[in-house]
Amino acid sequence: MKMKKFINAPENLTPELLEGLAAAYPNKIKLEEGKIVVRATPKAEDKVAIITLGGAGHEPALSGFVGYGMLDASVVGDIFAAPNAVSLLAGLRKFKRDAGILLVVLNHAGDVMSANMAMKMAEREGIKVKSILVAEDISAGINAPINDRRGLAGCIPLFKVAGAAAEEGKSLDEVYAVAEKFNKRIATLAVAMTGCTHPQNGNPIAELAEDEMEIGMGQHGEGGGGRSKIMTADETATEMFNKLANAVELKAGEKVFLVINGTGACTPMEMSIVFRKCAQLAEEKGVKVVQGIIDELLTVQEMAGFQMILCVVDDEQIKALNAKSDTPYWTSIGM
Amino acid sequence: MKMKKFINAPENLTPELLEGLAAAYPNKIKLEEGKIVVRATPKAEDKVAIITLGGAGHEPALSGFVGYGMLDASVVGDIFAAPNAVSLLAGLRKFKRDAGILLVVLNHAGDVMSANMAMKMAEREGIKVKSILVAEDISAGINAPINDRRGLAGCIPLFKVAGAAAEEGKSLDEVYAVAEKFNKRIATLAVAMTGCTHPQNGNPIAELAEDEMEIGMGQHGEGGGGRSKIMTADETATEMFNKLANAVELKAGEKVFLVINGTGACTPMEMSIVFRKCAQLAEEKGVKVVQGIIDELLTVQEMAGFQMILCVVDDEQIKALNAKSDTPYWTSIGM
Repeated sequence: MKMKKFINAPENLTPELLEGLAAAYPNKIKLEEGKIVVRATPKAEDKVAIITLGGAGHEPALSGFVGYGMLDASVVGDIFAAPNAVSLLAGLRKFKRDAGILLVVLNHAGDVMSANMAMKMAEREGIKVKSILVAEDISAGINAPINDRRGLAGCIPLFKVAGAAAEEGKSLDEVYAVAEKFNKRIATLAVAMTGCTHPQNGNPIAELAEDEMEIGMGQHGEGGGGRSKIMTADETATEMFNKLANAVELKAGEKVFLVINGTGACTPMEMSIVFRKCAQLAEEKGVKVVQGIIDELLTVQEMAGFQMILCVVDDEQIKALNAKSDTPYWTSIGM
Repeated sequence: MKMKKFINAPENLTPELLEGLAAAYPNKIKLEEGKIVVRATPKAEDKVAIITLGGAGHEPALSGFVGYGMLDASVVGDIFAAPNAVSLLAGLRKFKRDAGILLVVLNHAGDVMSANMAMKMAEREGIKVKSILVAEDISAGINAPINDRRGLAGCIPLFKVAGAAAEEGKSLDEVYAVAEKFNKRIATLAVAMTGCTHPQNGNPIAELAEDEMEIGMGQHGEGGGGRSKIMTADETATEMFNKLANAVELKAGEKVFLVINGTGACTPMEMSIVFRKCAQLAEEKGVKVVQGIIDELLTVQEMAGFQMILCVVDDEQIKALNAKSDTPYWTSIGM
C-alpha cells in the first residue's frame, strides 16, 4: 500500500522539499550546502546572527522563518532527525562574526547533542556563540525535570522577539536577555485527535482510537498522558488554557499573545473556534489577548491537532512581535 | 460517533470561527453584523472598495484576506453555503462611495445568484458596483461551458493584484481592467488523496479508495474526472502543470507566479516537493517561476490535497503581488 502522500523516493524528501521552498521564496531565502537555509540578503556582519537547527517533516518550521527580522539560518536534519554536529558547525562557520551568534535549540535529545558538540567545536575555532534552550512544553507538568519538557512551536515567536532585538543592533548578551525574558513566560500544550504517518517508512507515529483525543502529545507522537474521550472545542480550550495560565502564573492585568499552531489536518476553522474560547477565558481572568496567530507554523505531518502557545507579553515584546519581518511564513510590515 | 474535529454546536460554527479570527487579528480586521469581516482601519472613501462573498468552512479564505492592500470586506455565508443577497447588500451598503466597489465573485451557483440579486438591489439604491467572475478551474477542460468552470483559490492572488491597484487610487474601470487582465491568464487544478467531513452533519463530502487520488476534485468534493491510482509527487506535478500550462497557453520567455494551496491535510513538505518539480518543468519550457506561495490559503476542511494555481505574470503584476499588504494571511512589506 502506498502512503497517501505526494512524495517521490522517501530518501529524497528533505533535499526535495528544501529545493521547493527555496524556489517559491527566492526573494527571501536560499539554500546552501543542501541543508542550510539562509537569507537571500544577508544581515549586516555587525549584528548578532540567529541560527536554529532541527529535523525536517515539520514544515513550515523551522526554515520557513529565515529572513529579515527573524532567523539568519536554519540547519536542517532529515525527517524528524536532528542535523549532526558537523552540519551545524558548517552553519555556525558561515556566521562567524564579532557580534556573535545566538543559537536557538529546541529541547529534543538529538538537537541538544548536536548543539553541544557543535558549540564546543565552534568555540575552539573562535566562533562566538551563545545558546538558548526552548523547553516550553508543559505536558509533563510544570515542575517536571528538564528532559521531560520538550521544545515545541514556542520557539517561533521567540525567533521573532530575538530577531527584532538583533536587527536593532543589540549585543549578543542583550539579544540573549531579550530571548530569555520571553522564554520564561511562554508555555505550550499540544492536543491531537489523530496520529500521523512517518513519510519515510509509512508507519503511524501515534495511534488514537476513533473516539479518543490526547492532550500533551509531543511533536513526534510522544505520549502526553492526557488521553480522553473527544471533547468539544470549548472544553478542550478550557482545559488547555487553564493549564497554560497556571504554568506561566498568569495574573489579572497582564497581556498575552496567543498562538494556535495547527499540526496538520486541523482546520483553521477549528483553530479559530478554539482561539475564541481562549480570548473569553482570558477576559474572565482580567487578562487581555492583545493579538495572536491562527496558522500552521510547525506541523507534525497530517496530525489532526494543534499546539496552544501562551506568551505573557509586555508592550516592548508586543512591539517586537510586530516589528518588520520578511520571512516565507511570518511577514510583518512593522509598526 | 463524534466527529474528529474541535467544534461545539454545529449550528454555531460560522459565528464562532469569525469571532475567533477577529480576536486573533484585531489590528487588521473586525467583525460587523455577525458575518461581515471588514478592515480594522477602513480604506479612504475616495478609493475603490473590493468586496467578496463566499461560504465558510474554507478558512483562511476568504475573510483572512481582508486588510490593507487586499479586500475591504468579506461577506460570509454558512458552511459551504453562499451568503444570501440581503447579507451581501448589507456589505455593499457599507462601502457605497463615488469611487465604486469591485465585487469579486467565485463561480459557484449560490454565490453567483446572491451576487446578481444583490447587485440589482444595490444599483437601485445608487450604489456603484461592478463585478468580476473568477472561474479559473480547468478540470472540466479549457473550453468547457462557464457553468462547469468553478472559481477556486485563484481569486486570492487576484484580490492582491486588484487590491494594489485600488490602493494606488485607480478608478473602478481601471481596477476592473487590472483584475480582468490577471484573471485571463490564471488557471487552477485541484487534486485530492482523501475526501473530508462536512463539519455540520459529519458526512463525508467525497470518498476515495485507499489506493486512489483524484485530479480535478472541486472545493466541495465535486467530481473532477481525474481519478487514478496514487501517483508520485513528480508524476502528479507533471500532469497538473502541463494541463495548466496548456490552458493558459504558456510560452517560452514568460514568467509565472505559482501557488500550491493546501486544502487541508496535505503537508507543506509535500507541497514544497510539488513546487520543486513545477519549477523544473517551467524551466524546461523556457519559463521562469519568479516566486510563489506554498501554504493553505483556501482549505476544504481536512481534505488531503492541494490546488495548483498558475498565474502568468508581467513585471507590473509581480510588483502588485509584492505591494504592501497587511491582512491576516497575506502580508507583504512592499518593494
